[in-house]
Amino acid sequence: MNSNRNSKVVLARQPVNRHCEPSDFCIEDGEIPYPDEGQVLVRTGFLSLDPYMRTRMSPIGTYVAHVEVGEVMVGEVIGEVIQSRHKEFSVGDVVLARSGWQQFAALPIEDISRVDTTVAPPSCYLGILGIPGMTAYYGLLEVARPVKGDTVLVPAAAGAVGHIVGQIAKRCGCRVIGSTSSQVKADFVTAELGFDACIDYRGKNVDDLSAEIAELCPQGIDIYYDSVGGDLHDAAMLNIAINARIVIVGAIARSSRMEQPDIGRRWTRELLNKRARMEGFLVLDYADRVNEFHQTMSAWMSDGTMSYREHIVDGIESAPKAFIDMLAGGNIGKQLVRVG
Amino acid sequence: MNSNRNSKVVLARQPVNRHCEPSDFCIEDGEIPYPDEGQVLVRTGFLSLDPYMRTRMSPIGTYVAHVEVGEVMVGEVIGEVIQSRHKEFSVGDVVLARSGWQQFAALPIEDISRVDTTVAPPSCYLGILGIPGMTAYYGLLEVARPVKGDTVLVPAAAGAVGHIVGQIAKRCGCRVIGSTSSQVKADFVTAELGFDACIDYRGKNVDDLSAEIAELCPQGIDIYYDSVGGDLHDAAMLNIAINARIVIVGAIARSSRMEQPDIGRRWTRELLNKRARMEGFLVLDYADRVNEFHQTMSAWMSDGTMSYREHIVDGIESAPKAFIDMLAGGNIGKQLVRVG
Repeated sequence: MNSNRNSKVVLARQPVNRHCEPSDFCIEDGEIPYPDEGQVLVRTGFLSLDPYMRTRMSPIGTYVAHVEVGEVMVGEVIGEVIQSRHKEFSVGDVVLARSGWQQFAALPIEDISRVDTTVAPPSCYLGILGIPGMTAYYGLLEVARPVKGDTVLVPAAAGAVGHIVGQIAKRCGCRVIGSTSSQVKADFVTAELGFDACIDYRGKNVDDLSAEIAELCPQGIDIYYDSVGGDLHDAAMLNIAINARIVIVGAIARSSRMEQPDIGRRWTRELLNKRARMEGFLVLDYADRVNEFHQTMSAWMSDGTMSYREHIVDGIESAPKAFIDMLAGGNIGKQLVRVG
Repeated sequence: MNSNRNSKVVLARQPVNRHCEPSDFCIEDGEIPYPDEGQVLVRTGFLSLDPYMRTRMSPIGTYVAHVEVGEVMVGEVIGEVIQSRHKEFSVGDVVLARSGWQQFAALPIEDISRVDTTVAPPSCYLGILGIPGMTAYYGLLEVARPVKGDTVLVPAAAGAVGHIVGQIAKRCGCRVIGSTSSQVKADFVTAELGFDACIDYRGKNVDDLSAEIAELCPQGIDIYYDSVGGDLHDAAMLNIAINARIVIVGAIARSSRMEQPDIGRRWTRELLNKRARMEGFLVLDYADRVNEFHQTMSAWMSDGTMSYREHIVDGIESAPKAFIDMLAGGNIGKQLVRVG
């Protein structure tokens, strides 16, 4: 890769009702942009890969605009200011930037924010101190509102959001059951993070999963932090306790079918019988509470009570495969691409 | 009917995955019971017919036990104490009793409560001051939590609960759209109760209903008070606004299919995109707040700002047909059987 050029990943094709493929992406090589007056030039250090990006690749309507074919894939990065044409930023500043899957970007200052590297390593601002951590934090604490003694089911338990959700729930005095797709990941969340148990969902249908949940949670599930959808959603709904809270954060299990209506068993009667609440959550609604989140979470990191895991691949050209692998559950912890 | 006998309606057969039929019920004639020490004998004046009774006829599991074949149908009545073997009750007391579809019942005092007939006519305690009114009141105010300017969609708008929900929502400064199955009922809720508009849902599919809702509610629905399920549920979910609240109170549209899983379009992605909340509500959870409800609602009745409608048929033997008609939407207002 030419070090004087800007390598970037653009959307070559929108996947519709199928899994993402490497050929949906295209690596392009362009000029390093020159910042306009009031802008800064950022060199990407780490690129964050997140499940929400699958939704942005799709033509379906959602809460934000999708990426058009030929556009750079959207995403957050941690980078360094290497040229500044704005008085508030200096060369060398480490910033969080919404610059997408590329090595360099010239950005207005509305799209960047300085991060405090004395609190945590820069990459943390893409994970535990970034959108995944904040999704875990406010989704659990503000929507699910756990109380001591609650039983919490966390799918994608070893993922960027899940492994934080489970630890916060433990702090709240909850019993935490994870679900993952491998024994290695199950061991990680139980042995290293203190989850009480973890389901290995591979090869199990709704009935199997429901029976396993029923055995692990004889009093039912009080909180289901649903980032996944799919069979585990159904199995969880068969086991909700009275006054259960189901937080809908994502539907990664539907990523190959997201453009079609979701036909399946509906759970309104169970919501009624159990006086349960199912509620959608988007972290962007909590944007004005980022400082409160940073303070609490960095304190938990400092006192050693919050573990954090990253899954790093190297090179911007690795991003498509890493993204596809992540959608299939190949990562443990926060998926990052080291670009710098 | 022999006036010295106790006519009662018992369950002859459990309807499963079909509509109720008259032959599911059997009129039986028995002895007038004699109250034990500590009990009272109540003569039924009015019997309440409510959609929840359909669920109690079914073998499916729910939040309360079902009625067994051969048992008297469950239900609330307003009656008069005609014999008392408990010092707290006297002959002539007007009471609300859980005595079911029959003319007389000997009851322990836990199953009865005296009603204040100076506040409202006795039958009101089965409707606007009873379970339907309380379902409307707490389901809307405590679960949906309307704020001024919200758009509220009320299915079964001329029914026992719906016509109260809409009026409470109007008091809260909401825009209220009803849905009913006839022009007469639509006129009732708009002309007499002040609803802003009313959909006549007959002969319309989900797309038709969705288009009509979209036209009536261009900013989307903030509150959907869902006592019905079915196509209107789907049409409503296609039109929810950001932060919408969907209160699940019943599913009368599914009464002929309630024993089978509810397969259809699921709305978790819409809940996510709209950060909406779908929550089940059972009025029994608010049993300890009945006095607060009575005070507020009777004040609203006294000052003339709350209208109330009853739909009365005569004779205990009319109850099965009236119940079946009510499930099909034949009533305007609270369905009652005058038994006395």
